[in-house]
Amino acid sequence: MSDEKLRFACDYMEGAHEKILERFVETNRLKSVGYGADEFTQSAIEKIRAACADEQAAVYLLVGGTQTNATVIDALLKPYQGVISADSGHINVHEAGAIEAGGHKVLAVKAKWGKLSARDVEARLKSYRMDVTRDHMVMPGMVYISQPTEYGMLYSLSELEALSAVCRQYKIPLYVDGARLAYALACPENDVTLSDLARLTDAFYIGGTKCGALFGEAVVFPGGRQPEHFFTLVKQHGALLAKGRINGIQFDTLFTDNLYERIGKTAIDAAQRIRAALVQKGYELGIPSPTNQIFINISNEKLEKLDEKLELDRFEPIDEHNTVARIATSWATTDAQVDALISCL
Amino acid sequence: MSDEKLRFACDYMEGAHEKILERFVETNRLKSVGYGADEFTQSAIEKIRAACADEQAAVYLLVGGTQTNATVIDALLKPYQGVISADSGHINVHEAGAIEAGGHKVLAVKAKWGKLSARDVEARLKSYRMDVTRDHMVMPGMVYISQPTEYGMLYSLSELEALSAVCRQYKIPLYVDGARLAYALACPENDVTLSDLARLTDAFYIGGTKCGALFGEAVVFPGGRQPEHFFTLVKQHGALLAKGRINGIQFDTLFTDNLYERIGKTAIDAAQRIRAALVQKGYELGIPSPTNQIFINISNEKLEKLDEKLELDRFEPIDEHNTVARIATSWATTDAQVDALISCL
Amino acid sequence: MSDEKLRFACDYMEGAHEKILERFVETNRLKSVGYGADEFTQSAIEKIRAACADEQAAVYLLVGGTQTNATVIDALLKPYQGVISADSGHINVHEAGAIEAGGHKVLAVKAKWGKLSARDVEARLKSYRMDVTRDHMVMPGMVYISQPTEYGMLYSLSELEALSAVCRQYKIPLYVDGARLAYALACPENDVTLSDLARLTDAFYIGGTKCGALFGEAVVFPGGRQPEHFFTLVKQHGALLAKGRINGIQFDTLFTDNLYERIGKTAIDAAQRIRAALVQKGYELGIPSPTNQIFINISNEKLEKLDEKLELDRFEPIDEHNTVARIATSWATTDAQVDALISCL
Amino acid sequence: MSDEKLRFACDYMEGAHEKILERFVETNRLKSVGYGADEFTQSAIEKIRAACADEQAAVYLLVGGTQTNATVIDALLKPYQGVISADSGHINVHEAGAIEAGGHKVLAVKAKWGKLSARDVEARLKSYRMDVTRDHMVMPGMVYISQPTEYGMLYSLSELEALSAVCRQYKIPLYVDGARLAYALACPENDVTLSDLARLTDAFYIGGTKCGALFGEAVVFPGGRQPEHFFTLVKQHGALLAKGRINGIQFDTLFTDNLYERIGKTAIDAAQRIRAALVQKGYELGIPSPTNQIFINISNEKLEKLDEKLELDRFEPIDEHNTVARIATSWATTDAQVDALISCL
Repeated sequence: MSDEKLRFACDYMEGAHEKILERFVETNRLKSVGYGADEFTQSAIEKIRAACADEQAAVYLLVGGTQTNATVIDALLKPYQGVISADSGHINVHEAGAIEAGGHKVLAVKAKWGKLSARDVEARLKSYRMDVTRDHMVMPGMVYISQPTEYGMLYSLSELEALSAVCRQYKIPLYVDGARLAYALACPENDVTLSDLARLTDAFYIGGTKCGALFGEAVVFPGGRQPEHFFTLVKQHGALLAKGRINGIQFDTLFTDNLYERIGKTAIDAAQRIRAALVQKGYELGIPSPTNQIFINISNEKLEKLDEKLELDRFEPIDEHNTVARIATSWATTDAQVDALISCL
Repeated sequence: MSDEKLRFACDYMEGAHEKILERFVETNRLKSVGYGADEFTQSAIEKIRAACADEQAAVYLLVGGTQTNATVIDALLKPYQGVISADSGHINVHEAGAIEAGGHKVLAVKAKWGKLSARDVEARLKSYRMDVTRDHMVMPGMVYISQPTEYGMLYSLSELEALSAVCRQYKIPLYVDGARLAYALACPENDVTLSDLARLTDAFYIGGTKCGALFGEAVVFPGGRQPEHFFTLVKQHGALLAKGRINGIQFDTLFTDNLYERIGKTAIDAAQRIRAALVQKGYELGIPSPTNQIFINISNEKLEKLDEKLELDRFEPIDEHNTVARIATSWATTDAQVDALISCL
Repeated sequence: MSDEKLRFACDYMEGAHEKILERFVETNRLKSVGYGADEFTQSAIEKIRAACADEQAAVYLLVGGTQTNATVIDALLKPYQGVISADSGHINVHEAGAIEAGGHKVLAVKAKWGKLSARDVEARLKSYRMDVTRDHMVMPGMVYISQPTEYGMLYSLSELEALSAVCRQYKIPLYVDGARLAYALACPENDVTLSDLARLTDAFYIGGTKCGALFGEAVVFPGGRQPEHFFTLVKQHGALLAKGRINGIQFDTLFTDNLYERIGKTAIDAAQRIRAALVQKGYELGIPSPTNQIFINISNEKLEKLDEKLELDRFEPIDEHNTVARIATSWATTDAQVDALISCL
Repeated sequence: MSDEKLRFACDYMEGAHEKILERFVETNRLKSVGYGADEFTQSAIEKIRAACADEQAAVYLLVGGTQTNATVIDALLKPYQGVISADSGHINVHEAGAIEAGGHKVLAVKAKWGKLSARDVEARLKSYRMDVTRDHMVMPGMVYISQPTEYGMLYSLSELEALSAVCRQYKIPLYVDGARLAYALACPENDVTLSDLARLTDAFYIGGTKCGALFGEAVVFPGGRQPEHFFTLVKQHGALLAKGRINGIQFDTLFTDNLYERIGKTAIDAAQRIRAALVQKGYELGIPSPTNQIFINISNEKLEKLDEKLELDRFEPIDEHNTVARIATSWATTDAQVDALISCL
């Protein structure tokens, strides 16, 4: 908790946007029914529907990302199906096998910087269809992508449209993990809106945990096409909050007065200032992420020197002597912190 | 959210004890590492260890009850084992099949008011051992009980000791679901302390969700005897909070200045006043719960009349014309609410 | 393998009906494609369709009973559903938790001699529908019965029609485990034919293992209404035989020249002679099974004396001094064996 | 079943070695207890122990390969672990997701012709150990290889020793799928014996289905180090044969008078003759398999021409115009068939 050191290792180091805490305090003694049937949750759902321009959308508020992915994917897949994912996808690497624990194979596809192309997906689907032994194989039953990806990269609208078209042609759902969605939406390079997601996907989630909430992820099934008995599946996956209002209040607040947008913008503005300064100082940005994660190629020697005053994330090794380090900004990043970071790099 | 009506249907209708919200506000901008490695969580763990008089205890902070039961039970059982539970146990009835989704059978034993006796458990274990076809059967691999039970009943110390002795004789773990543990601990009739639980069980959880927190359950493995790689299993079950500090701050607060005890006492004092008034008014208390849940046998006619001003829980039907109704008090119940309730009954 | 002792403990002690072995020898060097696409299997399927008077029936040949139950039930249930079964049902007691290992709860209903009544099933379904907490519960998603039951009892046609009507009213499948179906079909008391099963159920299997084959169970989905991608699910459950022809040849033989009927008749004739002799000798038949399993109440003292020359099955204890013992006849029981048995009882 | 066409597409097209059928006929009416406790199975186990020079070996007879892999791997892994396999491994491609259905991830490693090197495995294990996020990842918990591989390739003794050494250093089991083990053992190039497998691995299975039996795979746990309650796990996986004697008789026969060796030799001799002829005729052998599978690079045009008189397996496409085709010999391949094949190529 020492704040003498500058800390930019990840985007979930603080509590929540102050507006959320205020609402907790204001509403604390009001009584509400449990499990998401409360009025706060209902209000949050209405606001999310409006933001997605989809009045029929089914919206469920869950607690965390791994839980959300496991619940949604398990609900969308049939027992004989698996999920197509980039090899670096969160579900394939960092969820401790939660998808397999649910009985499903992750069908990993090699993908640069975590981005699946429509072509790669179609090739995978075609190769399954044409394989004479396919009935002995796991059928690709849906596609999982992240916006932005683990590497901070964005799908453009046309890329998303192409993925959506392939999925619809092959009649399988497209699902988008939006753990850091606020930081995609706020990006000048981004041309994919919430209503595009609602139009082009079969399910996606709007991340709260990394975008200003204490926790929480809002799952959206566009057009009200949720899996049957999804509520019970949420319960079965241990993902149902007894005090659903806590999720409701958070998302209601995030979708009031454009707070979710403003949170994203704070992080992106900070990231752009940092990126500009890094380039000026001669750092090499190994991965061209335009979102709130900044990746620099840096020597281990330099990294160790920085360690005294700065906490970064060692993202992945380049070779014995060099590392890709990650700087993450967030809703909580201040101008003063950005200034201090720039001056110490 | 209308507060004109008196609401006593359950014990998770409000936010959190105000002290917890205050701590959220105070600490909000401090930066901490994720996944429970933060200093708040460490402090909470130390305080829980002290409260249990078990310095070696392994403590994990999870989010909700179903999730906690599924994760702990799955971690303690071998694939060929099931869990013995009262037929009315939460895991057997109200967790949407989460234990079975993890691959394990709930071995339900008929039990009055949710209480398993050592004798019943031993009979079950013996009958397995003596069955010549046992290798074709699910082996009873652990015992699950709740303190208090779903019916608000308490295990006495001697009952718990007897259960513990049977489990140790048969070398299987005893696990206690403490979703409402504060309301057991604060009960004058109770003689089981946290250190008794640490001494007599292999795992138990201290409930936060129903006892003053926004959410959260603290799992204790006495003596540090946690299942191998339990952290990874928590992650796999979608039960790992990214901002572990949120759990840490809550339990750190609950275990500071005896807050957890005081929360329990508030609810029990209220329940005792209500119970006394009910008896005086001639109500029949069908289930002799001494904790924060009060059960009355009431005619449906009367119940419908009460509906206008009072929200109770219809717990279970007695016959066509009568119902067991439940009144639940909590950390948030005020004297004024109790007065109002009594006057309207 | 000593044949000096009379052995009546179960109905799977010998190899296979000689006609099956003859066909193996005859066809041994013919080459066929794998996994059930061979001509023997196709012929078997046609004959089973004819026997069921259901030309559209989808038929799959699996290896064993537990495997068949696990595969079919897993395929018919949704992840949020469980299967209603008599508490003594094979899936609830003697399949080592295979249904739960597939993620599903067995919803056990108390049933005398293993027979579920339409009334009990309807009560269970109604109670789920009327429970306000049902979305937190496992939904009853199908009904499992055995014909004959574990206790050798038969469902009459009217009982089966009533069960079928309840299932159709509640829109859930009815599935019949026919491990010993030959011994039901051959029973004079029986009025349920294969075509009745095809008309009234959604799935059933015709047992081979206990009815004259080396192994094998033929699953029938009437009207061709099999679960999607059932072949792949069979493979996933490890239930797909590479040399599918081995299954094909067996069932083709069993359904040629009424062999399956004749096999059943052999066992039932033997059972009737034994039962008549037992009654005459004053034995008490505790369970009124009309099929190939004969249950007698016998003192442990007498049982021990019989042990020298006779192997029976100790089915379940009555009290400290008495036991329900089981005598099972089969396709392989000879007149000489029956005579010897009668003379030694 | 038409035998006018030469059929070399796979090695499981016939019934069983005649000696096995003879034993079935001889023993058919002998009565034995079920589930593998019979004397035939006991005799088979003793002979397999002797062949492996491991008197303590625990041996279980299962039905098929997918089932065996799923049961053994599920039994050896902890819930937080996955299994390392070549990307082309049978468990990763052709078992319909059976491993994942059991809750475990297949950790696929790119491997030429299906052979995992000790170096690749060690790199995978090291990278897990050194990853700071490893507690969020699936732990590699065992290594799966096939002898021979899907491409017919062999591990040499020194390669197997190196793999074994890595596994022992990292304290994880090494498991060998021996679906076609007879065809490895009989190969002149092979220097790995059954006793080497017993010495160097933690589990392996001796394939029956593809090596002369109707079906059946014999799992060996060297030194008697089988997973706890393995019998119950076999039952739970639907892999327990009621008439265990059928498996017992088959493996007892295969391990009498070196039949398993002779079966292997028949196939290998035939393969060597075919290979020599192919080379002489100018065919390119794309994959240098020395076992019973022969792979040729062939134009689709030529392949279509051959289709009239010859059935081969189209193993995988090379490009638009060419294919890797597979010719498989077996215990049942005759000299006449080899002659005919050679003359038509």
